[in-house]
Amino acid sequence: MTEPTLDIVAIGNAIVDVIAQADDDFITSTGVTKGSMRLMDEPTSDHLYSRMGPGREISGGSAANTVAGMAMMGARCGFIGQVADDQLGEVFAHDIRANGVTFNTPARAGQPSTARCLILVTPDAQRTMNTFLGASQYLPEAALDRDLIASASILYLEGYLWDPEEPRAAMKAAIEIAHQAGRKVAFTLSDAFCISRHRADFVKLLDSKAVDILFANEVELLSLTELEDFDVALDQVAAKVPTLVVTRSEHGAVAVQDGRRVAVGAEPIERIVDTTGAGDLFAAGFMTGQVQGRSLEDSLRMGAIAAAEVISHYGARPEAQLDELIRSRLG
Amino acid sequence: MTEPTLDIVAIGNAIVDVIAQADDDFITSTGVTKGSMRLMDEPTSDHLYSRMGPGREISGGSAANTVAGMAMMGARCGFIGQVADDQLGEVFAHDIRANGVTFNTPARAGQPSTARCLILVTPDAQRTMNTFLGASQYLPEAALDRDLIASASILYLEGYLWDPEEPRAAMKAAIEIAHQAGRKVAFTLSDAFCISRHRADFVKLLDSKAVDILFANEVELLSLTELEDFDVALDQVAAKVPTLVVTRSEHGAVAVQDGRRVAVGAEPIERIVDTTGAGDLFAAGFMTGQVQGRSLEDSLRMGAIAAAEVISHYGARPEAQLDELIRSRLG
Repeated sequence: MTEPTLDIVAIGNAIVDVIAQADDDFITSTGVTKGSMRLMDEPTSDHLYSRMGPGREISGGSAANTVAGMAMMGARCGFIGQVADDQLGEVFAHDIRANGVTFNTPARAGQPSTARCLILVTPDAQRTMNTFLGASQYLPEAALDRDLIASASILYLEGYLWDPEEPRAAMKAAIEIAHQAGRKVAFTLSDAFCISRHRADFVKLLDSKAVDILFANEVELLSLTELEDFDVALDQVAAKVPTLVVTRSEHGAVAVQDGRRVAVGAEPIERIVDTTGAGDLFAAGFMTGQVQGRSLEDSLRMGAIAAAEVISHYGARPEAQLDELIRSRLG
Repeated sequence: MTEPTLDIVAIGNAIVDVIAQADDDFITSTGVTKGSMRLMDEPTSDHLYSRMGPGREISGGSAANTVAGMAMMGARCGFIGQVADDQLGEVFAHDIRANGVTFNTPARAGQPSTARCLILVTPDAQRTMNTFLGASQYLPEAALDRDLIASASILYLEGYLWDPEEPRAAMKAAIEIAHQAGRKVAFTLSDAFCISRHRADFVKLLDSKAVDILFANEVELLSLTELEDFDVALDQVAAKVPTLVVTRSEHGAVAVQDGRRVAVGAEPIERIVDTTGAGDLFAAGFMTGQVQGRSLEDSLRMGAIAAAEVISHYGARPEAQLDELIRSRLG
């Protein structure tokens, strides 16, 4: 087993977010559950776009946000994801590379276009996501850079990418590559509706010991276990993975690692503007702490600090220098 | 002369801004004067893009920002400008229409792509703009909607659009249409470097009484007159136009209308994030006040309030509800 040259390589949807303000009535009129992520085809996405307010385009994608954040905290990162050969694809590629992340997946010619997520942010700072997966759903196993995956301490996968067929197969292959190279696999459950679509698969993944670090929020943990009691659900899932991290919004987060349970509170924040990316950046902070050899508690606090930064402004990519922020808060 | 059905129609560059944070050293390394606007060809723009940090794309264009702001304040607005038939063109068209502005200029097929402005924002909130005019520079006179122009109380033109040949000719034709319909023409000098490229033309425009309302900032006023004394320059230009409005950054603004001079201070603001669009939104507030029949002083204050909003966040389009903001501050 060779020494890893990267800290993490992530596989995820390569998405550009289109973020607009909206009121609750507008969310209701779109027929979607506030706070959730809904998949839609291109005509539906175009129709919603024509109805929504003026937007701002900021690169997104759950796992991509995580590695962008980790790179800002000094971690060595790579990303694998499928964009189309179009302007939004260029935007995505530029932004993630400008964050210092290695990104080499070739753009895909022709239709569909690069994935976009129409994000409606309500005055309570909640985000409701409407995703057209576009080119992202055609990430083929053949596009995997096997050497890149084998070179990273952690392979990080997003549950969202379990929806489309080709990337799902690619992720399974990537898990094999990572484990054969002696690397860890981290996985985020992404979204309760995503879990309801793939619960059996996700449970099988955990039972087969494919996952070393699992990220979930409270709702996702309960959805996965189909339980109502948080502590029971936490124990049940913690028994399946070496490291389990569960975020609880304003109540902070809890981790269980090899039987030891640690909790931290949420970081104080002046004003929450847009919760998009909170979970992604929590994962970024936590994993950066872990690859830096920090304690479980400090890793959780790094997650909380990174999450607090990203919800203080529009967009799921950090604006402030996260490394300085963590140095000032944590030392 | 029929009653106008629109308050304003603007002709301007149809641009999507790509906004990134940068430090002063980076600005120096690009060889551009901080705070200015520089035109560049596509390869130069692509090269700068590859070097700059992760961005956020927000629709821009000076006159387009102005009408977007005016529409948010309740004015009836139209816009004429040239986008290409590409994703950024769709973004521009969506955003301005979502702001409630009538925009019908057909997208242009083929190359070049939609205009983009790489905006580098330094920690002092100054913006330095690097513009690839793309499709915008091919706005043909034939694309002018003559009825739209004749239907608006004010025709608003941006000096920036004087650079490319076709739109310059189109703007001259538009001035004819507006004046024949008994409408007013408003013009912004845009930028000191733009003035240095077109000083003789701009002076001729003023001397020929083509302009009824002129907008400039302090530097632009001095550049136009090639004078060093603000008051002398103000008097000289005020003699050429019925209404002259000059913004002075943190020192507020002054207007001279039919010989009467009024000044207001800048609006208080908690934190300046990005000065992009300050002049555009000042013009928006001022003209909205004028078409609402407000006093010269109140019109200036509306300009100051709108400018203060847009510099409190990234991007040159307002985020807050400007109409409510003005009601709460001005009644």
